Amino acid sequence: MTSITTIIEDIAEEMRGVSERGAVADYIPPLACVDPAKFGMAVIEADGQVHTVGDANEAFSIQSVSKIFGFTLALDLLGDDLWQRVRQEPSGSAFNSIVQLESELGIPRNPFINAGAIVVSDVLVSHYGVEGAQQKILDLVRPLVSDKSGITIDRNVALQEKETGFRNAALANYMRNFGNIHNLVPDTLDLYFHQCALTMNCQQLAETGTYLMTGGRNPMTGQAVISPRNARTIMALMMMCGHYDGSGAFAIRVGLPGKSGVGGGILAIAPGIASVAVWSPGLNRHGNSLLGTRALERLVQRTGWSVFNAHHPS
Amino acid sequence: MTSITTIIEDIAEEMRGVSERGAVADYIPPLACVDPAKFGMAVIEADGQVHTVGDANEAFSIQSVSKIFGFTLALDLLGDDLWQRVRQEPSGSAFNSIVQLESELGIPRNPFINAGAIVVSDVLVSHYGVEGAQQKILDLVRPLVSDKSGITIDRNVALQEKETGFRNAALANYMRNFGNIHNLVPDTLDLYFHQCALTMNCQQLAETGTYLMTGGRNPMTGQAVISPRNARTIMALMMMCGHYDGSGAFAIRVGLPGKSGVGGGILAIAPGIASVAVWSPGLNRHGNSLLGTRALERLVQRTGWSVFNAHHPS
Amino acid sequence: MTSITTIIEDIAEEMRGVSERGAVADYIPPLACVDPAKFGMAVIEADGQVHTVGDANEAFSIQSVSKIFGFTLALDLLGDDLWQRVRQEPSGSAFNSIVQLESELGIPRNPFINAGAIVVSDVLVSHYGVEGAQQKILDLVRPLVSDKSGITIDRNVALQEKETGFRNAALANYMRNFGNIHNLVPDTLDLYFHQCALTMNCQQLAETGTYLMTGGRNPMTGQAVISPRNARTIMALMMMCGHYDGSGAFAIRVGLPGKSGVGGGILAIAPGIASVAVWSPGLNRHGNSLLGTRALERLVQRTGWSVFNAHHPS
Amino acid sequence: MTSITTIIEDIAEEMRGVSERGAVADYIPPLACVDPAKFGMAVIEADGQVHTVGDANEAFSIQSVSKIFGFTLALDLLGDDLWQRVRQEPSGSAFNSIVQLESELGIPRNPFINAGAIVVSDVLVSHYGVEGAQQKILDLVRPLVSDKSGITIDRNVALQEKETGFRNAALANYMRNFGNIHNLVPDTLDLYFHQCALTMNCQQLAETGTYLMTGGRNPMTGQAVISPRNARTIMALMMMCGHYDGSGAFAIRVGLPGKSGVGGGILAIAPGIASVAVWSPGLNRHGNSLLGTRALERLVQRTGWSVFNAHHPS
Repeated sequence: MTSITTIIEDIAEEMRGVSERGAVADYIPPLACVDPAKFGMAVIEADGQVHTVGDANEAFSIQSVSKIFGFTLALDLLGDDLWQRVRQEPSGSAFNSIVQLESELGIPRNPFINAGAIVVSDVLVSHYGVEGAQQKILDLVRPLVSDKSGITIDRNVALQEKETGFRNAALANYMRNFGNIHNLVPDTLDLYFHQCALTMNCQQLAETGTYLMTGGRNPMTGQAVISPRNARTIMALMMMCGHYDGSGAFAIRVGLPGKSGVGGGILAIAPGIASVAVWSPGLNRHGNSLLGTRALERLVQRTGWSVFNAHHPS
Repeated sequence: MTSITTIIEDIAEEMRGVSERGAVADYIPPLACVDPAKFGMAVIEADGQVHTVGDANEAFSIQSVSKIFGFTLALDLLGDDLWQRVRQEPSGSAFNSIVQLESELGIPRNPFINAGAIVVSDVLVSHYGVEGAQQKILDLVRPLVSDKSGITIDRNVALQEKETGFRNAALANYMRNFGNIHNLVPDTLDLYFHQCALTMNCQQLAETGTYLMTGGRNPMTGQAVISPRNARTIMALMMMCGHYDGSGAFAIRVGLPGKSGVGGGILAIAPGIASVAVWSPGLNRHGNSLLGTRALERLVQRTGWSVFNAHHPS
Repeated sequence: MTSITTIIEDIAEEMRGVSERGAVADYIPPLACVDPAKFGMAVIEADGQVHTVGDANEAFSIQSVSKIFGFTLALDLLGDDLWQRVRQEPSGSAFNSIVQLESELGIPRNPFINAGAIVVSDVLVSHYGVEGAQQKILDLVRPLVSDKSGITIDRNVALQEKETGFRNAALANYMRNFGNIHNLVPDTLDLYFHQCALTMNCQQLAETGTYLMTGGRNPMTGQAVISPRNARTIMALMMMCGHYDGSGAFAIRVGLPGKSGVGGGILAIAPGIASVAVWSPGLNRHGNSLLGTRALERLVQRTGWSVFNAHHPS
Repeated sequence: MTSITTIIEDIAEEMRGVSERGAVADYIPPLACVDPAKFGMAVIEADGQVHTVGDANEAFSIQSVSKIFGFTLALDLLGDDLWQRVRQEPSGSAFNSIVQLESELGIPRNPFINAGAIVVSDVLVSHYGVEGAQQKILDLVRPLVSDKSGITIDRNVALQEKETGFRNAALANYMRNFGNIHNLVPDTLDLYFHQCALTMNCQQLAETGTYLMTGGRNPMTGQAVISPRNARTIMALMMMCGHYDGSGAFAIRVGLPGKSGVGGGILAIAPGIASVAVWSPGLNRHGNSLLGTRALERLVQRTGWSVFNAHHPS
């Protein structure tokens, strides 16, 4: 079998030749000024092997990929009580739709659309405060990463998100109206925007996903991060809702639970096999990394890692 | 490890003791008069072992589970061109919603909601005619089943569905208005209603799923039924959309691609491992078998067959 | 004061010079082939004076203007019980939207959108049968008209509407699903399409409106056609909903209760003062006659007939 | 003819005997603690005669009735340019719906739903500032009123509206996201909440409506307040949208342009004839005064003031 290193080098080579790379998010300058030619990929295998290619060691804003971490903490805190405040279903609409909130009385459909992630932030603010919750998120991801340098919350990005985040402010106020935001709207949004401003590189991002790959443990320390059941729940919702209104297409093409961010990053998990991060800033029309999705599709074609594969290689 | 037979006998025993069994579909008499106490389950393992329990050999109306077969045939015919006429995304709404069709100009969101399955029927009518397409469906499923007795299309059920199927007639006419139904509405609906009236028992239903379990082949003959890629596509969409607006909850609780029917049947596939059918007529509020879902949840808890399990047993 | 004849001649002269005349409805050939240069206008004053200009004596398909007549008959039959089956509110959406029917369980918002007019047709079919109801409509309008020649239901138009009327078939089936259509869907649609195919000229159309102008009586015979209360109700709903999603703009610009049809006709009533019909086949983006609306705006500017005018000239 | 004084005394007598009075708005204490037994009515005739009955001289929070005044000022400022920022059509949904804003890209349907009135407030803040705009509103209404005592903006009501106004904050942020709010959201909302907190009694409210009754002039001074065209536009939209999703029912039952407020007040205009204010705090299911609507219905039955009346008494 071809080595993973060879496979991802082939993929990076293919991506270098692609001219149509999608549109870089431009709603705030720190995202808009990222070079669309960037491409990085990192794979952590279950046995600890690390494979990287391209710009895998260049930090970027992981944006909505960070929703995994907030959701992990809130699920650990509340267990099934979390489902009183956010549902478990795909939304059937864009990532920032407010329509569904009206008919479903302020309960967002899942923790990976903006409204749902804001509710998750609100849970964390209630338990840890705004500053404490940011620290909790960093405390969750840093121990999973070998070289922690550069993992930060970019205050400038958070500030700029806040200054232009009128739609998220609308979502939060709307849910507060239904009693589904318990803290002051600016506080909950403050955590939300700071969580989205989490910055790291591909290798680090792939390492943060290892607790999902293993079913809940930090593979470097053996310590439980979350229960196996919660790990499966998180991956199930990544599969169902991790790519907004392109989640079905991602399930068909890639067949792995994954979560994308508007910064061009995607984290995908092959349960028991590998944790994979990819970064390419250009987005497709659903707001997911265009080349990142294609790279994951190629990886799964070569490795057979799709969870829908009959001859699972694990 | 406990044998599968023991596990499903334990499950059947548990289910016998459950008093809250959901509501049996009552919109047509042949469904309304089914005994809510029925419970059957059948597991076909990749090595060919068959395990059954309870009413696994009693025929029932598989209803929407049959959408798998129509979709299999249409995908085989059109390949990716099928996606011009039906999308690949969860709907975020009830199985028979017409709202989405207005905003998306007559293109249904996936082949497993009613509107999408009607488009699939229309594809089959265009290629095979109404009678020919019914025969094609039977020709798809019968060779997968060892004892074919009782596998039929129940003409009485089809007729009664037709006489009360005003909402499906609305969907079909609405899509015809946008040009997404190519045949006469009554012809396309005729096939749709006959497909839904497919009748078989749990063991037979589990056997029909073996071509998905194997990645596209009939395990009894070794012959290809569909390409591995198409098998993965079908399972990906079963995972995303197989249980209407309860698909996310099913993914979390069961973690397998599955498809339910209003008759109380569910077909679930553990890729490379097993094909499982369960039948209990009472439905939950999303229209999926209440005990059937619980039985599958138990099976996966005992076997670890969830595709999101880190220690995949295959 | 300038005579009405002079005013409408001025208006016709202005309209002759207008090059942007909107798009003629093209979904069926009998509408598509109408000359967009046509323009006619007729005013019947309360004292019986008749003023016509342009193509006021050329017959055209009045289409949805006919919804006034079906509504008149159904309101007379059922009184306030009619409001169990159709509401009294503007729809806030296009004339043929199906979305609202889902959230409001098959009850259309008013008798002037398609769904509401189909319910009205269903009421008439229940009482008079399909053929009988067509006769009732003719029996309502003919006695109001001095020269009845050419007032017919155009069977060819009705047939072609039926053959392409998939969206109306969707609406009818959808409402039948909720129990709000009591007859066979094809029968109710048959009346609906025949009602829409009513054909007459501008002068005749203006004459048919005189029973609203007078508050319910046929001014030629003095006989009651409908109660004064029902006449006010009909005009109130014409004001609120008579021009689909352009009703507010019409109320602002014209300020009279009116009803438009896709054939380019509009009937507008100045209560106690005049009944006015105008015809120009080109439509604006809301499906209302472009020049017809402008002509009515001019007429009201010159006469002060707006019901919102403080110095009402009656 | 019976005198107006006798008529409204009869009406007040009837209302005293009504036990079902609707529910008083309870979302803020100053509204919740109003006595539901209150009923007042005032009629100003075109000749200046004033008729009052019941609690016509007790001040109350006019709430959304005040949207007339903001709209009057904004229309006077921008003319038809205002329609770039707010539409002219009924909404077909509840007064505070956010759904429509998503599909129509932040442009509210009319100036009388909350979103539209917030845009109007934003226009006024841009021209006059928050404090200046409040003064402008007071400067608009006070000269129309003979005894100005008690006409104030209730700061306590405004504050409490602000503290609970999460849905309005959602609407404003949502529109700001689309660029349709030009000022800081808190500033625009500040004016909006202060405008809603306008307090006066029935007689004063009826007097404020006289500039609409006359077609734009202050009848006490003869000075123009707004152009006749703008007066008609305001009344047309009051007719179309003044009672939220009960506007059609109001048009049928009362037949006058009117605007209701959640405080239980309604201002209705008989163009050229009278300006009428009524106050009863209990609301119907659409949020309009239950007895207020009934009282106006009775008044119009007795006087024939409906604009749809064929024998208009003016």
